[in-house]
Amino acid sequence: MLPLRQFQDFIEQQQLFVRGNRILLAVSGGKDSVLMLHLFKAVGVDVGVAHCNFNLRAGEAQRDENFVALLAKNLGLPFYVTHFDTKKYAAEHKISTQMAARDLRYNWFEEIRLKEEYDYIALAQHQNDAVETVLINLTRGTGISGLHGILPKRDRLIRPLLFLTRQQIEETVAANNIDFVEDSSNASTNYTRNKIRLQVVPHLQEINTNLEKTFAENIARFAELETFLNVQVEKLEAKIINKKADAIYISLVEIEKLNPQKLLLYELLKPYGFGENVVHEILDSLKALSGTHFFSATHQAIINRNDLVIIEKNKMVTANQFIHPTSKSVVFAGNEISLQFTEEIKFEINARKAFVNADKLIFPLALRNWQNGDKFTPLGMRSLKKVSDYFIDEKVPLHLKGTTPILVNGNGEIIWIVGMRQDNRYKLTTATKKVAIFELKIK
Amino acid sequence: MLPLRQFQDFIEQQQLFVRGNRILLAVSGGKDSVLMLHLFKAVGVDVGVAHCNFNLRAGEAQRDENFVALLAKNLGLPFYVTHFDTKKYAAEHKISTQMAARDLRYNWFEEIRLKEEYDYIALAQHQNDAVETVLINLTRGTGISGLHGILPKRDRLIRPLLFLTRQQIEETVAANNIDFVEDSSNASTNYTRNKIRLQVVPHLQEINTNLEKTFAENIARFAELETFLNVQVEKLEAKIINKKADAIYISLVEIEKLNPQKLLLYELLKPYGFGENVVHEILDSLKALSGTHFFSATHQAIINRNDLVIIEKNKMVTANQFIHPTSKSVVFAGNEISLQFTEEIKFEINARKAFVNADKLIFPLALRNWQNGDKFTPLGMRSLKKVSDYFIDEKVPLHLKGTTPILVNGNGEIIWIVGMRQDNRYKLTTATKKVAIFELKIK
Repeated sequence: MLPLRQFQDFIEQQQLFVRGNRILLAVSGGKDSVLMLHLFKAVGVDVGVAHCNFNLRAGEAQRDENFVALLAKNLGLPFYVTHFDTKKYAAEHKISTQMAARDLRYNWFEEIRLKEEYDYIALAQHQNDAVETVLINLTRGTGISGLHGILPKRDRLIRPLLFLTRQQIEETVAANNIDFVEDSSNASTNYTRNKIRLQVVPHLQEINTNLEKTFAENIARFAELETFLNVQVEKLEAKIINKKADAIYISLVEIEKLNPQKLLLYELLKPYGFGENVVHEILDSLKALSGTHFFSATHQAIINRNDLVIIEKNKMVTANQFIHPTSKSVVFAGNEISLQFTEEIKFEINARKAFVNADKLIFPLALRNWQNGDKFTPLGMRSLKKVSDYFIDEKVPLHLKGTTPILVNGNGEIIWIVGMRQDNRYKLTTATKKVAIFELKIK
Repeated sequence: MLPLRQFQDFIEQQQLFVRGNRILLAVSGGKDSVLMLHLFKAVGVDVGVAHCNFNLRAGEAQRDENFVALLAKNLGLPFYVTHFDTKKYAAEHKISTQMAARDLRYNWFEEIRLKEEYDYIALAQHQNDAVETVLINLTRGTGISGLHGILPKRDRLIRPLLFLTRQQIEETVAANNIDFVEDSSNASTNYTRNKIRLQVVPHLQEINTNLEKTFAENIARFAELETFLNVQVEKLEAKIINKKADAIYISLVEIEKLNPQKLLLYELLKPYGFGENVVHEILDSLKALSGTHFFSATHQAIINRNDLVIIEKNKMVTANQFIHPTSKSVVFAGNEISLQFTEEIKFEINARKAFVNADKLIFPLALRNWQNGDKFTPLGMRSLKKVSDYFIDEKVPLHLKGTTPILVNGNGEIIWIVGMRQDNRYKLTTATKKVAIFELKIK
């Protein structure tokens, strides 16, 4: 009475796993996951049962756990259970209860999978879940990646019930007198999904009675198209992205050639956290003068001469870091600046070191990045010069302007363009009694 | 009060047309197209008004036509009108009234555009039309091409109202006291679109109040992705499709390398009318023995040695063509076989000619393609041989087995494997009194 043939055909056709693999089943106790458990048991796959108690509805959650524990015991299967404080986790991470439950369970399943040596984690999502996910993603806004929604296999997750509709599951469970609980942890609180399920999908089914099958076919097409895009973008990355130690370079000529431009630049910049809006801005300003900056959460992009240059933000001095007389060293962007004092008046020609008249220092000193209007007196000169002009004269690429730390005295005067040139006002003189030696240590 | 700035911004941003272009407006008389007309008039573009009367609802259709004619006259604009017998056209072409109206109007608009020298045809579809189209296509089943549904610009069609929602159009028309008619020709009969509009979209809008804007963004992404796919498929075509005179060859090794395979083979074979199911079958039988045949409405595909070979069906002899004593020639697959009689007993060594003992012919003769079980006695031999064995011995590629015509006598005996070998039983002998000369003329 169980659809074993279709189940096995689906596993084979989608290459979900192979004979001999061990599968960890996520079983909430609801009809979907309980049917999945019976199907696996019936075809003789080596499985274990994992259950999450999210402590969301005290009595029901315990009832569900007991039900699944007993079911696993009766079937002679290993049983793994965990309890989560979902609300606390959600509050701590500032995410919805829904998202919190999702994160917690996926992390825990993976933990158990590794520890207990299972090959895959099986989730009991069905065709209607997939239909709903596509409609939710479209409604909220999506690209191609939101159109498959739920795939039969992704990494270590498999969904072997995607050959069944919700109705088929209900009929099968009823026809086989399979016991289950009304799943309390499930998304009964999910407003959006319920609205799609109850108010939208039935109307679409009036248009197409095979809606779930049609969507499964759509989804398979979109998943292939996404694969294709990913394959092509990888090739493109290998071809036009030039990763150097200080930054990532993409030639503007190559960006001009991209077709279609928005889509491909978006895909190329996605790993650096740049969104669609920033990509539009970058494309709009390709013809602009050099120097335009764009930011993501983790990176900065800047148009510099013939390249779009992308720098990790943590390689930049983003805020003042203060140096006190007792500071032995200050770490910035993974590198280090050390400070030591000496009364021996010595000097060394080394761009990585600054020998400064310590008597003139007003603590705390600040280490910060370039600011508009910065001026200093380059060593050996007598008058103030704009730091930006100095950078231009020294042919410092624009993007390094943001990553070059500047050591500033407590009175606001620049002491050292770190690694490049110190200020004439702070140089050692015959009157100097105490020397501060700053040293840049690149790691 | 009219949203002229947004209208002009949208035209510019989407590069719909340029200053000086002449635009032919499709005006049904409904609020969408009437608003479009007023917007164009207000910004001073050179436009003409085209109206189709589909004769679907007698009184209303005439009222609509009169309304649009008067509007054009009052605004001093050229007016073009046509009457269609939509039901008759639909019946003749076995398509829905909806489809018939669509075909008729697009064809007629293009005709007027060319004749009257307009640059573009403007249609008054708005953002909600686009939302509905995407949902309809998804519900009915689609690939990426069904996901943009309605684009701002495609070939000579532009849709300059895609920056407005239905609600915004209604508000604008009301606020500006713009007269319009309740469009009788419009899709009030379209069950599917109405269901989506009235029963599905409102629920999605409860989830996302900016649904139309979100869908416009989705659609722009999907359109870019489709462009990308098309660009890549064109490159792939140039690289792996080998078009020869007799057929189109795709190396099986190249097909094996496609990634993802289904999507790309589908796209490559689409121009030859092969659908998704056939593509799946071809991929399933790649490892099969040579000789498997697949058919589309227009083409045959066959796996032959190291290639997938695609042949136009009209290059094949698909049914018997009969030759009567009075036939001077028979045309098949664009080539010709001529017949003439002579009493001069002559002979010529020429594979394109057969010199046959006319006394043995039983009319009508048939020209047909190879059939399983065919046997003949090759000229110079004494015993029957399978035609398929003969083809193998002669190293005839498998796909030519289907395109090589065979001349058959009225008694079923083979007279000539056209262009290759005639039958020994029909050769000229000293007793022959009348000769039939068949000649293959390749065009």
